[in-house]
Amino acid sequence: MSHNIQVYIGYLAACLTTFSFLPQAIKTIKSKCTKGISIVMYSMFTTGIFFWLLYGYLINDFIIILANLITFIFASIILFITFVNYIKNKRVNGI
Amino acid sequence: MSHNIQVYIGYLAACLTTFSFLPQAIKTIKSKCTKGISIVMYSMFTTGIFFWLLYGYLINDFIIILANLITFIFASIILFITFVNYIKNKRVNGI
Repeated sequence: MSHNIQVYIGYLAACLTTFSFLPQAIKTIKSKCTKGISIVMYSMFTTGIFFWLLYGYLINDFIIILANLITFIFASIILFITFVNYIKNKRVNGI
Repeated sequence: MSHNIQVYIGYLAACLTTFSFLPQAIKTIKSKCTKGISIVMYSMFTTGIFFWLLYGYLINDFIIILANLITFIFASIILFITFVNYIKNKRVNGI
């Protein structure tokens, strides 16, 4: 199979998984509603995406870098909001 | 950076994203409750994972193949349950 087809399949994969993740991510960021998000699982996911990004860099694969960079930016914002909400809820329940 | 560290980072990435996905996936498969899952987004996600799997095969990267194969199996089962529930709901609403 030619190198071109390989690249197209990579971009197709990157587009599909990124665009399947983005609408819900944008919705969560806009609403700041992180109910139903497990802080442990989401921390694992975000760290995992960071390591995929690093892996893409190490094996010099631009498609893997690009796909995981976009996901990492949005996942980090969501994780940050989830942490803030978690601390807020702890404070409210603590009073 | 040595090839070994590269491989470790790849496996770490694969473990983190796979294990962050699995508990919710297993819960969904056991409960068969697919409420809140968008059939369009999940179809995109599952197809995307399939193309990542294919991409891993084409660039000959075992870590990418392994991570996406596990996710693809679980995502396919969830997508199938989501489709069945969707058809069931359509039938119930159609009567």
